[in-house]
Amino acid sequence: MTHIEHIGIAVKSLENSIPLYEKLLNTEVYKLEEVPTESVTTAFLATGNNKIELLECTQPGGVIQKFVEKRGEGIHHIAFAVDDIKAEMKRLREAGFTLLNEEPKKGADNKWVCFVHPKNTNGVLIEICQEIK
Amino acid sequence: MTHIEHIGIAVKSLENSIPLYEKLLNTEVYKLEEVPTESVTTAFLATGNNKIELLECTQPGGVIQKFVEKRGEGIHHIAFAVDDIKAEMKRLREAGFTLLNEEPKKGADNKWVCFVHPKNTNGVLIEICQEIK
Repeated sequence: MTHIEHIGIAVKSLENSIPLYEKLLNTEVYKLEEVPTESVTTAFLATGNNKIELLECTQPGGVIQKFVEKRGEGIHHIAFAVDDIKAEMKRLREAGFTLLNEEPKKGADNKWVCFVHPKNTNGVLIEICQEIK
Repeated sequence: MTHIEHIGIAVKSLENSIPLYEKLLNTEVYKLEEVPTESVTTAFLATGNNKIELLECTQPGGVIQKFVEKRGEGIHHIAFAVDDIKAEMKRLREAGFTLLNEEPKKGADNKWVCFVHPKNTNGVLIEICQEIK
């Protein structure tokens, strides 16, 4: 894992949260992207080579809506960049972690992604991601 | 804010969580530090120029113990590195954010730190920090 690629933050409303995070981080959202397979719209802000990804649910019953209903708005996951996602998935499996998808899947921001079950990681949802070339 | 300096993760037991995060991140804890003013012992792991800070409470009733009792283990805060913490505190105050300390205070890892109230930031506890020179 080379660095923290992004931190995903679940919000109720991008309309409210984008200006808030733009003020907080003193930078502008540089990309909005809908990810239909995850039922979210995402907004990205950059600080150095790290990103904040705001996540708003687009479908009733979507995973982000359920998260917000259960825990309130807040940090949803940490994503670490990796150079070879398949090798890293193999390493994690062999180290005893439970992966939430068997194969890398296409996520936001032109990435292959895989999630690690939070039961293995003190309740923290971890994503690993690799740029699609 | 120049980059994500670290992500603080509240855990019940460093003894259990250190080997877990060492396996996950494929790197070793490079520093343990007790911060008596915050009633925590911290353990640091690095990925690129970002860090993961595991936090275990050292005193009954400490802030990390209360967090774990209320929400379970998990992400406690995101810390952004800044070059001039006093200037950044002024900017945030003027932008309408509520700061949890009026002056920078000494935190772990040789840093001046200040926290932003999560009521302003979609429930996310934000720290800004500057290396003490």
